Amino acid sequence: MNISETAQYLKTLDRVLILTHVRPDGDTVGSAAALCQALRDLGREAYLLDNPEITATYAAYAEPYWATEGFTPDSVIAVDIAAPGLLPENAKIYADRVELCIDHHPSNSGYARRICLDASAAAAGEIVYAVIRELTAVTPAIALPLYVAIATDCGCFQYANTTARTHRIAAELMEQIDVSAVNKALFRTKSKVRLAMESRMVADMELYDNDRVVVMQIPLSLRQEYHATEADIEELSSLAALVEGTDCGITLRELKPGTVKISVRSGPRVDACAACALLGGGGHRAAAGATVEGTMAQAKAAILQAVERVTEA
Amino acid sequence: MNISETAQYLKTLDRVLILTHVRPDGDTVGSAAALCQALRDLGREAYLLDNPEITATYAAYAEPYWATEGFTPDSVIAVDIAAPGLLPENAKIYADRVELCIDHHPSNSGYARRICLDASAAAAGEIVYAVIRELTAVTPAIALPLYVAIATDCGCFQYANTTARTHRIAAELMEQIDVSAVNKALFRTKSKVRLAMESRMVADMELYDNDRVVVMQIPLSLRQEYHATEADIEELSSLAALVEGTDCGITLRELKPGTVKISVRSGPRVDACAACALLGGGGHRAAAGATVEGTMAQAKAAILQAVERVTEA
Repeated sequence: MNISETAQYLKTLDRVLILTHVRPDGDTVGSAAALCQALRDLGREAYLLDNPEITATYAAYAEPYWATEGFTPDSVIAVDIAAPGLLPENAKIYADRVELCIDHHPSNSGYARRICLDASAAAAGEIVYAVIRELTAVTPAIALPLYVAIATDCGCFQYANTTARTHRIAAELMEQIDVSAVNKALFRTKSKVRLAMESRMVADMELYDNDRVVVMQIPLSLRQEYHATEADIEELSSLAALVEGTDCGITLRELKPGTVKISVRSGPRVDACAACALLGGGGHRAAAGATVEGTMAQAKAAILQAVERVTEA
Repeated sequence: MNISETAQYLKTLDRVLILTHVRPDGDTVGSAAALCQALRDLGREAYLLDNPEITATYAAYAEPYWATEGFTPDSVIAVDIAAPGLLPENAKIYADRVELCIDHHPSNSGYARRICLDASAAAAGEIVYAVIRELTAVTPAIALPLYVAIATDCGCFQYANTTARTHRIAAELMEQIDVSAVNKALFRTKSKVRLAMESRMVADMELYDNDRVVVMQIPLSLRQEYHATEADIEELSSLAALVEGTDCGITLRELKPGTVKISVRSGPRVDACAACALLGGGGHRAAAGATVEGTMAQAKAAILQAVERVTEA
């Protein structure tokens, strides 16, 4: 469905439950919150399904919209969720009845009955912005979570997914809100624990493939040593992508013994999505991920081999 | 002078020399290069005075415009230069004959015969963009250095000086050019030397004033230990501003034995410009600097006292 069709369809709904994805980021949370507020401004009953994995970074944007216990939705909407496997545990019961998915992942599995997908959007928030524009006024209460959604998914306008449209939407949103505190909190603040962990990851980084591929690791032991919270670790995978001379930054994070989350950030030479797809994951060409079973060493060997395979092809 | 008056005045000039400031950053270099190209597109002879302190980061934007030896200008223009003291050594001979200064520093000393100043601009590049729009087409050769000017001075749209106008100009420029390689090089690349130096600065940081003020130091010895180039050190002063819980990040850099460059990045509580002014420096409220004589310890004591004084007031 295009933007107008999606807006028209949304007008027909009431008692709406909006879902966010596992390990929720700014885009899924901000887009869902903005959409929820817009539906409420239209007089509809709308909630977000509470996401148990929400971090302190994004909690304030989502919590005001958590569904009360016992809320029975008529319609379920998913935002920024590319596949049913990315639904949190408490959302799995809705996997078969998602009426609409608004997404920007080209790898979207098509699990929802209706889909509004624009892979050229830097964030699902860009699509949600366009939809809301056709529904109701973009108030400050809508503009703030939308700014969070868009700014976080494009690295505050640094990533290659940023377009002229991304900047124009940001300009429109900034007419409604002061984003300086948000920018400071999201992009220019690091906890002392995080700074210390980054130092260790840099000291221990490994280079491969003629120093073009860098691997950084976050074993459980490192997290325990620093008593790191989830917020301390959030987006740590962007660190590997900074190393000069490399164009493929791999971060391995031990989620629990035997389970490793792999994140890949890459330049044009390497298709991160294709590499992660070989391990059952997905994402975008320049930023993708996969979760695998095995030790850190096994995960490292697997993703290095996958990167090599897609790069040769 | 306003934008139109400045554009009209520029049309009357020929044989123009454009000056950039000491320790040239993206804004002074990018703004000067864009203006120089625009004047050339108008059929004028125009050059940049070579800046001996240019780093590898910005050299490619400036070098094509360096004045040939023996070029005698009819008119001299300064871009992003708040005071004659910020002129490089080889530009001092022009200090008394700057016909026009285009600047966004509220502290501009008014040394030029004409001034086009807009303190609400995130970068001098925003003003130069508006002026060029009245002169000639914004071609890719103009858009690229202007994007560098604007993006670097607002921390790629993260700093509090970023406005809706900043984003709108970025959108216009991005219609002309692909900025992904520039963003990667300027904002998402760190040399291994820089990463190692950052780790050391973090490990050695000191906290003051109930942990609200953080001090980081770059002594000459640290630079020598890592064989760091100027490009490795560039913008290292932004690191101190990241530490969670602090709202005043002070970086002390030993330029040579007995001379220390102080940089202050601050939140609303602290007026960085007022603090640095007490030590003979200047800048913006949230980002300012001063160069002082003395040891690192003396410079630290002086700026901590200055910050305390302006914060009490």
